[in-house]
Amino acid sequence: MSESSISREVTTYLARHSQLTVSPVDYEILEKTARLVDLDERDVLLSHGEPCLYLPFVLQGSIKVTKSSENAREIVLYYIREEGSCILSALGILNGTAYPANALCENKARILLVPSAVVKDFVNRYEGWRNFIFQLYNSRFHQLLEFIDEILFTNLDTRLVRFLLSATGGDSSVRKTHQQIAEELGSSREVISRLLKDMEKADLLKLGRGNILVTNEQKLKKRYLM
Amino acid sequence: MSESSISREVTTYLARHSQLTVSPVDYEILEKTARLVDLDERDVLLSHGEPCLYLPFVLQGSIKVTKSSENAREIVLYYIREEGSCILSALGILNGTAYPANALCENKARILLVPSAVVKDFVNRYEGWRNFIFQLYNSRFHQLLEFIDEILFTNLDTRLVRFLLSATGGDSSVRKTHQQIAEELGSSREVISRLLKDMEKADLLKLGRGNILVTNEQKLKKRYLM
Repeated sequence: MSESSISREVTTYLARHSQLTVSPVDYEILEKTARLVDLDERDVLLSHGEPCLYLPFVLQGSIKVTKSSENAREIVLYYIREEGSCILSALGILNGTAYPANALCENKARILLVPSAVVKDFVNRYEGWRNFIFQLYNSRFHQLLEFIDEILFTNLDTRLVRFLLSATGGDSSVRKTHQQIAEELGSSREVISRLLKDMEKADLLKLGRGNILVTNEQKLKKRYLM
Repeated sequence: MSESSISREVTTYLARHSQLTVSPVDYEILEKTARLVDLDERDVLLSHGEPCLYLPFVLQGSIKVTKSSENAREIVLYYIREEGSCILSALGILNGTAYPANALCENKARILLVPSAVVKDFVNRYEGWRNFIFQLYNSRFHQLLEFIDEILFTNLDTRLVRFLLSATGGDSSVRKTHQQIAEELGSSREVISRLLKDMEKADLLKLGRGNILVTNEQKLKKRYLM
């Protein structure tokens, strides 16, 4: 990655986040110390237990943040989409604690990595950087509260149908494996497969390899969401 | 509450939290603007949707922070014990958002309320105040992650037994109603009552009015936790 392209990416990113504005001197520091990385699908950005050496800003693509439980099941905590950053990395940097989750690339991604020392310094000196962190906290915290609400108070079959309907492409098909869906919903592959098979038997959808075709959306909604 | 007792409480609190140290001038501001409130059991400190006008510091007693779902069920998110503060209030103050939960007194409590303008100002000017917020956030975030992990990956009966064993007094009794236990575990009263009755039938405990007596702790552990 050439220096000029780093400069361009940094400039573009900061221009879109007016609260992250810094002085010209600090801008130079940012340009000199930040790194750009390009990740492919399933590449690992940061693993559980690793030190948080950088704050990642997602320029393109998306990052999936998961947590594994004692019995080796994985749940998706949240996605970091374009323009976003990782609150768990920010917390690790500001509190000096290790990363408590796994962050991996969901699809091709370009990430700007700002070293932890620079982040700490800027958070200390710039109100805009602090506010960025506080807003990041706020939105993730609310997401986690909603997630808790959902898993406690909504039946898994309803959650599955909501997930399917939100994930269908233009052709009513969901290109996910049962395992991937299980991870999204914090369930097991076996349970998801059983629910999907029930829905197939009821002529609501058709199961293929790595693909689920919703064949009767109206009936699916009527039975599970009303 | 006399001014001298506020001064004493503020001094005591700050002395225990060295990171919250402020200059003599700011200390005077803190003394002049902070309020002390004494709450009784079930008194409401802050309700869902209210603006966050103060950051509460719990001097004595404990505050229960709950969230209600669409179908009017309540879950306990966390407790604020002595020496603690409320991250959701801090986030509300720093982001200008309403309180997203309910905070009520679990037992008699004494709370120091610092006005939001003072909190904002101190967080802006003192690294120690910022670190306090970051640490508060870190610990609550991890608690929520653990809570998610527990509700996704642990059976309700196991969670119920863990809860009973952690809540028994010296006399092996748990002084909670089925409704209270349901709220703690994010379940319904009906489900908790059914599980408890099963355990009573198996001679593991004895149900009374607002009281559960664990009669065979060894067998209870053996059956549900091993």
